[in-house]
Amino acid sequence: MTGVPIKIGFIGFGTVACGALEILVSQETLLKRRLGRTLEITRIADREIKRERGVSVPKKILTTDPTEILKDPSIDIVVELIGGIDAAKTFVLQAIKAGKHVVTANKALLAIHGEEIFEAALRAGVDVGFEASVCGGIPIIRAIKEGLAAERIKSIYGIVNGTCNYILSKMLEEGGSFNDILAEAQALGFAEADPSLDVGGGDSAHKLAILSNLAFGTSVSLKEIYTEGIEKITPIDIRFAHEFGYRIKLLAITKFSGNEIEARVHPTMISEDTLLSKVDGVFNAVYVDGETLGPTLYYGQGAGSLPTGSAVVSDIVEIARNIMSGSSGRVPPASFVAGARKSRRIRPIAEIESLYYLRFTVRDEPGVLSKISGILGSYSISISSMIQQGRKIDGGVPLVMMSHMAKERDLQSALSEINRLNCISGETLLIRVEGEDAS
Amino acid sequence: MTGVPIKIGFIGFGTVACGALEILVSQETLLKRRLGRTLEITRIADREIKRERGVSVPKKILTTDPTEILKDPSIDIVVELIGGIDAAKTFVLQAIKAGKHVVTANKALLAIHGEEIFEAALRAGVDVGFEASVCGGIPIIRAIKEGLAAERIKSIYGIVNGTCNYILSKMLEEGGSFNDILAEAQALGFAEADPSLDVGGGDSAHKLAILSNLAFGTSVSLKEIYTEGIEKITPIDIRFAHEFGYRIKLLAITKFSGNEIEARVHPTMISEDTLLSKVDGVFNAVYVDGETLGPTLYYGQGAGSLPTGSAVVSDIVEIARNIMSGSSGRVPPASFVAGARKSRRIRPIAEIESLYYLRFTVRDEPGVLSKISGILGSYSISISSMIQQGRKIDGGVPLVMMSHMAKERDLQSALSEINRLNCISGETLLIRVEGEDAS
Repeated sequence: MTGVPIKIGFIGFGTVACGALEILVSQETLLKRRLGRTLEITRIADREIKRERGVSVPKKILTTDPTEILKDPSIDIVVELIGGIDAAKTFVLQAIKAGKHVVTANKALLAIHGEEIFEAALRAGVDVGFEASVCGGIPIIRAIKEGLAAERIKSIYGIVNGTCNYILSKMLEEGGSFNDILAEAQALGFAEADPSLDVGGGDSAHKLAILSNLAFGTSVSLKEIYTEGIEKITPIDIRFAHEFGYRIKLLAITKFSGNEIEARVHPTMISEDTLLSKVDGVFNAVYVDGETLGPTLYYGQGAGSLPTGSAVVSDIVEIARNIMSGSSGRVPPASFVAGARKSRRIRPIAEIESLYYLRFTVRDEPGVLSKISGILGSYSISISSMIQQGRKIDGGVPLVMMSHMAKERDLQSALSEINRLNCISGETLLIRVEGEDAS
Repeated sequence: MTGVPIKIGFIGFGTVACGALEILVSQETLLKRRLGRTLEITRIADREIKRERGVSVPKKILTTDPTEILKDPSIDIVVELIGGIDAAKTFVLQAIKAGKHVVTANKALLAIHGEEIFEAALRAGVDVGFEASVCGGIPIIRAIKEGLAAERIKSIYGIVNGTCNYILSKMLEEGGSFNDILAEAQALGFAEADPSLDVGGGDSAHKLAILSNLAFGTSVSLKEIYTEGIEKITPIDIRFAHEFGYRIKLLAITKFSGNEIEARVHPTMISEDTLLSKVDGVFNAVYVDGETLGPTLYYGQGAGSLPTGSAVVSDIVEIARNIMSGSSGRVPPASFVAGARKSRRIRPIAEIESLYYLRFTVRDEPGVLSKISGILGSYSISISSMIQQGRKIDGGVPLVMMSHMAKERDLQSALSEINRLNCISGETLLIRVEGEDAS
């Protein structure tokens, strides 16, 4: 094994950093056999460096001052794993400016400031690796940037948040309520103490912004991604979904159609016949539909110290290979070359078309169905199937309908009219359904 | 878009070549946006160049003489798609010797002569792309070489032959016999007129040799891969499998254990709870278990003109990126650097341990069970569950057992003793079962 070691500085010494460091230490021989060069952990910066993390790195390489990494001319690769936005952005841009390559798992940072970071990297001729930012160890970023390089991607459907998928899987399996299963997930460490970024869909939106950007060669602003969480899903919706042959998943969806891009995160019903619907528990999966390749699916653990650490180290290896062959920047960070990216209109949610599951909570009295279906009809929304269940819930009876393909704007207008009816006794739930219109 | 075009010569103008050419033509703009350079189809050689293929390439670039490509100094990349072994090997080695990069979909060639081709490429400093050789458009070669670069791979389980998976899926769905479903698959174009390479497992063994080589950094000879096809599977085995909670798939399996490698292709029972068991029809999927990443799975179309063509073009893009950044050879063709690969013993099938499904066909007479279980016991093989079914098939009654973990050698010895019993009236079927011992 020839050549000087590739020197790596870590900013952040938390869970993912420990996973990556453990792999660098324990797989040193394997990594040398694949790379032909030693990867050296040169420096680790964190605000807190006294706590024992169980990773065997020499004490003397720890520092509380990240500038010791950013200003060390010998360091080739800076691994940013502190999370958050502002400080992370500063460190990443400083590293790039200093001519260092960057690896980050920071999806929020890339979703918000990705354009600026990618442009800075292009200018400086350095690489930015971010495989760990989407779906942990699943190599989905590489798949889109390289494996599917020949593909005009039509759509992506991702289960990209393990917490949500765990909760929805358990609700199906055990029949428990959202709140009970969330509490259980928190006790088991599958959900954060403040779960809002996960269950509210925000984390999925971050990942979708990155995937959509790479797939379509366009900037997708986080603000333009319609985002809805799983908090309103109840066990009866999961049961009704099953009766219609569907499962409910929180999906991050992006599509290219009519020169516009759809980008949205919301609970979605998908057919029980699809492989994606069978991805359960904390696992993630991303389904990509390409024009000539057709569907491919990538599945694995989307979070956790070691799976995410593995993605960080795979980026380090890739960047090291580029350093060794003098080819930094060989693949553009955003998958398309500078100047070839295009600005696309992000279609507002009101303009999408979809199939819809609608659950009304109605008073058990005559004429209800005719009033509701009358309003739906007046907005040209037709119903493909219906379930009315006698049992009262919260003083009302659930009335469930599946629509044919309809326009979201029409549907929302119809719903706001329906929700004003006296016969509606509880909140109406809408779940978008992905699939072919059966009509 | 700057720079001279990357020039490509195709040797072979068959199904996959047409797929790749169609993508190069129809996606020209997209490819330029991703690559920043034009890909030029400079020459296409085939023995037969008069037949209309429906791909719009200028007539004047067609030739019957492959040396017009091999000797053209302007051609950067030679795409070998003629199939077969000897001529393909000659062309590939000549191309490499001439300093040209090579893309091939030829799994048989790589399974047999991969070492020689990879070494020649390393010496010449050129790239060999072979994503299309395993599972068509699924980017599994890249996943192993780059996405999982940090992973000590423990095992790979692949559904890598669409014909077999189609037949087994249909046998489950429709209850038909192997021969009937095979005939149906042939009529639909999902099986070759001579299906032996597919249904006999040979094609899967070719792909497994490639995957095992990349995953473990060792040469795996095709001769050492135990290979068994799906011809003996009957509808009752598929039904019994379901009763035990399993599905039967033709799996290509490779494992690293005790510094040895297992590499085998055979019908395998896997739990109905696994995602791999739910991969149906002509689709392929590869499940990779990594030490720190845990399981990942890659799913898609493993064959066909466009999906395989997409993989060919993704390799062309990758090689073009290396040409443009002067980094040809940045990733070693066999995933490990020269000198870091190791010779490993391939464990003979007699030495593996597994769970087993055994279907005996017995005379309906007293004492049969005690004779069979007595012999199994004498070889330390214990049974975890059993189904005896009254209905006669071919003059015998099926007696089905699932074993606890047992040694293949012991099992084969017991079976040859059992098969000599008078009470055995038909052929005994053994199917290996992947999973945890339930004991």
